[in-house]
Order: sequence, then C-alpha cells, then structure tokens
Amino acid sequence: MTQPESVNPAATAATAPPAPLDVSALVVGVLGGTGDQGRGLAYRLARAGQQVVIGSRTAERAEAAAEQLGLGVRGADNAACARESDIVIVAVPWEGHADTLAALREELAGKIVVDCVNPLGFDKQGAYALKPEEGSAAQQAAALLPDSRVTAAFHHLSAVLLQDTAVEEIDTDVMVLGDDRAATDAVQALAGRIPGMRGIFAGRLRNAHQVESLVANLISVNRRYKAHAGLRVTDV
Amino acid sequence: MTQPESVNPAATAATAPPAPLDVSALVVGVLGGTGDQGRGLAYRLARAGQQVVIGSRTAERAEAAAEQLGLGVRGADNAACARESDIVIVAVPWEGHADTLAALREELAGKIVVDCVNPLGFDKQGAYALKPEEGSAAQQAAALLPDSRVTAAFHHLSAVLLQDTAVEEIDTDVMVLGDDRAATDAVQALAGRIPGMRGIFAGRLRNAHQVESLVANLISVNRRYKAHAGLRVTDV
Repeated sequence: MTQPESVNPAATAATAPPAPLDVSALVVGVLGGTGDQGRGLAYRLARAGQQVVIGSRTAERAEAAAEQLGLGVRGADNAACARESDIVIVAVPWEGHADTLAALREELAGKIVVDCVNPLGFDKQGAYALKPEEGSAAQQAAALLPDSRVTAAFHHLSAVLLQDTAVEEIDTDVMVLGDDRAATDAVQALAGRIPGMRGIFAGRLRNAHQVESLVANLISVNRRYKAHAGLRVTDV
Repeated sequence: MTQPESVNPAATAATAPPAPLDVSALVVGVLGGTGDQGRGLAYRLARAGQQVVIGSRTAERAEAAAEQLGLGVRGADNAACARESDIVIVAVPWEGHADTLAALREELAGKIVVDCVNPLGFDKQGAYALKPEEGSAAQQAAALLPDSRVTAAFHHLSAVLLQDTAVEEIDTDVMVLGDDRAATDAVQALAGRIPGMRGIFAGRLRNAHQVESLVANLISVNRRYKAHAGLRVTDV
C-alpha cells in the first residue's frame, strides 16, 4: 500500500531546489481508467515504471482493464482506487464528473487530484466548449473536493497515441495548472516520467477552462490534418 | 492602392490545390498598429515583404509609428487603413474593440478581418479570461461586421519578440480560426510569410474563446519560466 507520510510531495518540494521531484515511488490512481484517455494514461505511466491503479465503477471492469494492460497495473473500484493512490487522475466522462467526485470526497482527502476532463459538446459542426457552472471541470473538482489538492493536467493528449504500444515517445508538453505549488510540481514531475512529455506550469485553476476547451480546437486540427495533435510550449 | 478583384483570395483558393496561397501582393492593415502587438505584427509582416498600413485613431500617430518602423510601412487613420487593405488585422485593446469595429463596418465590408484581440482581466493573481457576451472577441467582430470575412489568429505571439529586430525567426505556430475556408487559408498563408511561423487551421469561430483566453496561461508560463512562450502544434 502507499505511505503518504514518507512520500509527501509537499515535504519533498520544501527541501528540494528547482531539481525535478522524485515521484517514482508514488502510486497513481486513474479514475475512469477503463476509458480511452484513462487507459492510455495508465499504460504510459505504468510503462514508465509508475505503480498504477485503475479505478472504475465496478472492481471487475477495472481488474479486466488492468489485466489487459499488464505492467503491474491493478484494478479496483473507484473508492479503493482513490484510497490506495497518492496522486489520482480524474479521467471520467464529463457527464459523470460531479457525481463521481462528490462520492469520493473522503477517499480523496489529502490527495493530489489531477483533473484531465474536457467538458465538450458535439454537433454536426464538430466539438465545442461547454461552460461548467464553476468555470471549468477542474474548478468543479476543487469545489467538490475542498480537502484535496486539485490540479489540472493531461488535457491535450491523443488517446490513440497513448494506447499505441508501437509509439515510444509522446511528443507533447503537458500544461499543469493549480494553486498549490507543491502539487503542481509533483504533477509536472509525473508528466516528465513519460518519454517525450514535459510538464509545464501554466497557471492557476481559474484559468483551466480555456486549457480544457482547447481540445475542441485540437479536434479540428486532427480532422483537417489527419493528425494526432499535441502542443509544445516554445522558449521554455 | 489595392486591387481586391484580381487578388481575391477566395478565387485563388477555389482553383488552387493544397499548395499555399500566394498572399504576397495583398495589402495588410493593422488596426491598433501603434500598440505593442500591432506594431510588432506590422514590423514582422513588412520585414517579410508584405505591404503594410498601420491604422490608429489619428493619422498622425499612425504615420509616426509607420515612420519609426520603416520598411515601406504607411500610416493612416483607422478608416483609411481599413479601406486601403485587403486583409485587416484587429489589434486594438479589448476595451475599444466593439466601438472601433462598429464604426468601420462599411470600410471593412468584403475584407478579410483577422481578430487577434485577447479579452483579459488582470488582478494581483495575474491574468484571467474575460467572457465577452458574444462568446469571444472574434465572435463579437463577426456580429458587428456581417459583411466581412472574420477570422481569428495571431493571439499567442510575444510582442517583445515580434519587435526585437535581432530576432530572425518567431518560433511558433499561429492558430487560425474561422468559418470561411478561403479566408482562413489566406490568413494561414499570411502567417507563413513570417520566418519561423506556421499557420494552422484550428477550428471555427465558435471555438475562439479558449484560443484568445489561453494568453492568460502563456502569461503564467512567461512569469514562471522568464520566457516569451509560444505554441507549436505537434504531429502536423
């Protein structure tokens, strides 16, 4: 199981200079880990050597997905996944976002939560941004999880590339947002564990909406160019 | 002066295959060309060989800015700038955006309008996205200019880098949005005239808000990393 005390990223951050945090011993949970995005992230993190627990509504589904991934990935129901993890990635569909998180408030207390949900609508013209009442999915998470350390990251990844075992490196930066510096530092370090990826701090949670919504634009890019677009931040 | 008939980008686009449009003969106006962003864009486009007219509220201010830039850049009041140009970049402050465009509806009729305005607010925590009633600055422009071909682009550029004469290339992609394919093609081609830049189609105008607002995130990046951040779209 995990040892939240000894591997507390906040404590590490306080003593560490700009050098990247060592998050290699942290257990990463992926709520919604049976979906494309969640499964892809679980795969990449496990492949990078991270301990990963996939969460789903039922333990059976999660265990089946975990077994398929191999690499030591475990499966559990969402509550157990949250309890057993140090960092919990939220990759559930937007429709189930609020209900899932509201039910996990206790299990997620004290954890670093990484919201990667993109609230989008779709019609015949393609994707468009939805406008969550709280401002963004990440802000909704923060409102529902007052005892967690909520960040936002991993929005702009191609689930296709993440899951393609032939792809060695994921050529993209990961914008990491949050108001808790030690938490965003840890999430940046986690992103940096995946070959090709780099975690870039990109602002406070109040500026998460546009980062989440930009996926609608990347979908347009993908359509026009038959691509799996990612983003790099230049001059950093 | 300009010859809108013979250099109509729509006509060119209809006959041309994927090859980049030739926009080198088009006159580019820059409304708000005396501000940092506008002046920087005017400089880069003129340096790339484009005919550029800077627009400002008074012809005198525009002419002074144009003279400072050299490179054949002319200055004019906003109305004359719009009239004399084929493609008109809107780089005015958000506060003056609606009034400036409403007053130029006739002059901008039939023109390709490129909105690069980022509606942002600032407080002690930094920048944050404003929410224009129309959805975005670009959609406000489209609402005010029903006879123009409104696009959105050039949001994520560093005014510092644009204006730095020692900088040879601007290392960034330019997301180009719009509902008029020939117009976005022309704006992409225009972006591509500037060394280092590449114009990438990134969706319809209804998805402009997040592209405009993302500047708040880039401001956070610049603060954290002491950078002049830009964006590259990968896999395109």
